[in-house]
Amino acid sequence: MTTASSMPAAAQGLVNSHARRVFNYSAGPGVLPEEVLKQAQHDIWNLGGTGMGIMEHSHRTPPYDRVLAEAIEDCRTIGGIPKDYHVLFMTGGATSQNFLVPANLLGQDETADYLTTGYWAERSFEDARMYGRVREAWDGRPTRHTFVPSDAEIAWSERPTYVHMCSNNTIYGTQWRHADGSIRLPRIPEGSFLACDMCSDIYSRPFDIRKFGVVYAGAQKNVGIAGVSLVIIRDDLLSRSPRELPLMLQYRVMAKEESRHNTPPVFPIYMSGLVFKWIIKQGGLAALHARNVEKAGLIYDVLDRSTFYRGHARADSRSLMNVTFRTPTAELDTLFVAEALRQGMDNLKGHRATGGMRASVYNAMPREGCKALADFMREFERTHG
Amino acid sequence: MTTASSMPAAAQGLVNSHARRVFNYSAGPGVLPEEVLKQAQHDIWNLGGTGMGIMEHSHRTPPYDRVLAEAIEDCRTIGGIPKDYHVLFMTGGATSQNFLVPANLLGQDETADYLTTGYWAERSFEDARMYGRVREAWDGRPTRHTFVPSDAEIAWSERPTYVHMCSNNTIYGTQWRHADGSIRLPRIPEGSFLACDMCSDIYSRPFDIRKFGVVYAGAQKNVGIAGVSLVIIRDDLLSRSPRELPLMLQYRVMAKEESRHNTPPVFPIYMSGLVFKWIIKQGGLAALHARNVEKAGLIYDVLDRSTFYRGHARADSRSLMNVTFRTPTAELDTLFVAEALRQGMDNLKGHRATGGMRASVYNAMPREGCKALADFMREFERTHG
Repeated sequence: MTTASSMPAAAQGLVNSHARRVFNYSAGPGVLPEEVLKQAQHDIWNLGGTGMGIMEHSHRTPPYDRVLAEAIEDCRTIGGIPKDYHVLFMTGGATSQNFLVPANLLGQDETADYLTTGYWAERSFEDARMYGRVREAWDGRPTRHTFVPSDAEIAWSERPTYVHMCSNNTIYGTQWRHADGSIRLPRIPEGSFLACDMCSDIYSRPFDIRKFGVVYAGAQKNVGIAGVSLVIIRDDLLSRSPRELPLMLQYRVMAKEESRHNTPPVFPIYMSGLVFKWIIKQGGLAALHARNVEKAGLIYDVLDRSTFYRGHARADSRSLMNVTFRTPTAELDTLFVAEALRQGMDNLKGHRATGGMRASVYNAMPREGCKALADFMREFERTHG
Repeated sequence: MTTASSMPAAAQGLVNSHARRVFNYSAGPGVLPEEVLKQAQHDIWNLGGTGMGIMEHSHRTPPYDRVLAEAIEDCRTIGGIPKDYHVLFMTGGATSQNFLVPANLLGQDETADYLTTGYWAERSFEDARMYGRVREAWDGRPTRHTFVPSDAEIAWSERPTYVHMCSNNTIYGTQWRHADGSIRLPRIPEGSFLACDMCSDIYSRPFDIRKFGVVYAGAQKNVGIAGVSLVIIRDDLLSRSPRELPLMLQYRVMAKEESRHNTPPVFPIYMSGLVFKWIIKQGGLAALHARNVEKAGLIYDVLDRSTFYRGHARADSRSLMNVTFRTPTAELDTLFVAEALRQGMDNLKGHRATGGMRASVYNAMPREGCKALADFMREFERTHG
């Protein structure tokens, strides 16, 4: 039931105590690829023969220059990020991007449209209020955030500077997608640009960055660990300056100074670099997407064939990253989570907003983890259904 | 010349390749205790038998609750931090504290006095300008930041809300100190409180937190790694609210939500926790201070007996953390740095503002590292003096 314990000891990394690892369905910080963890174990002691660990290197030395340059280059390669976009590593989480986007990009007399498709989208909307005229062009609250809207359902403002969306709603388990799982985008008003919170599905499937003005994501789900956020922003937006801001809060300062206006979060950035290399080794986003479709499919297939489980998300908006479902009763939900834990499957309890269960199956969740959960779900239904 | 290569293999941690480590005099991010690195190597794979690594744990689960609670408790124990102060872990570096202090604590019509004793103190002063009336009560630029002022040299404003100081000036190698190396504080005007950037000497010597309103420090020199800042703030200051700020920028929100209003930098906070435990094991701040006095003394002793080397700092302001010095010529400085590197001593080049050399000898620099450098300095003087 675990990935690690069935591997030869030598392949289990350098640690021989507590080597048994569980399947971790945490919504974030989430599971990391095991080969990334093993590389980190080495580099913590001595990075590439430099005689010091990655955490002990100054951010103004050639070894860190390489770490940063490779992270940015690999990030560009994976996402097909062209030269006229900057790749930034920032701190403060995606939560800070909620105010940094309007603070940097929205004039006090301008309008921004928000597509409120979940909890974090609500938060993005709330945090933007102090910076300009912000409107909800779609409000998913009345329908309990069970789906994301079609173009016909969105009521645009006349001239929004930008449209804010959240591509995957971690808590509710919905995602902007076509039937094949590829990314679907709203048709936004002419002259406006898309600002996208991509926290929980960035680099889990291909997307065309040219459709966006700015994309941001906390790293701790698909591209690294907590403590750094990836921001990809179109260069022409860097010249906007709607208000006076401290240097640390300006995208243009971060862009000009290569994400090291101050001491950056060296180790979290290094970890994103390792994950980028891992993604490339997996075959890139198309290969990961195919795998993610199959992985989530194993679990959704159980839901579709069951009268016992109910999914939260409407079928056309189902997330490939976060699968939300419940049994007929809260008591059985609790039993499900406890029994799964005993079998080596952790962090399946759903968010209090939805109740039930949530299985987060990010890039680093192996297919075996989805298979194990699907098998367990069928078994649990046989016993308790 | 290295610490690790002379140790038995079993004690060198789990990594058997690239095990040879150098003495690292980096000003920051800087050297970490080797036993902290070894613990991190274990916990990255599997934290305390939970079946997942520290970086894969959600910040809303019992294992992280423990990591955070112990980090705060150990931090309080070490510093003698009483109940009416909050210990916060924030992101954005100390550089962000430069604007967060005035943004949270200074009204637009109030005055704050700044003691500009070095590069970072200059930066703190500049970044505060947009929030209130800020004045330099001392300006160390004309005397090239070679010392910190006596009380008689400071020109206070009539009623400053707070006084900002930087306890140790990393670049210039000066420190607020008495002759025995213990902390010396300016006598500030009645009714005002001290705000102190303690980045490069926090927890390297005892200090009385009751003398301060707020103390902050990036963790990457003495209390962890880059990516998290420690903020210790007196509770009554949390009720100040001089202006509207995003939630992420409010001390009171961070205090109320235990430094996890959003996903915190889990791993950097965990690392600070490990370093705190290491400090306690060393005997606490008094023991560390005695060791730091001896360590820096080994190097200052060479300077005092030499006509070849010149120190940058005036003797009464010499830093126990950063020793700045130079040889008679820039060419010899370059040779010194290169030759030291060949002998396993890295990152001795001084900052461009001072030139020459800088040896940062934080808590985690072993005595042997200071001894090795002192020996090398004498040898270099014999050869080139």
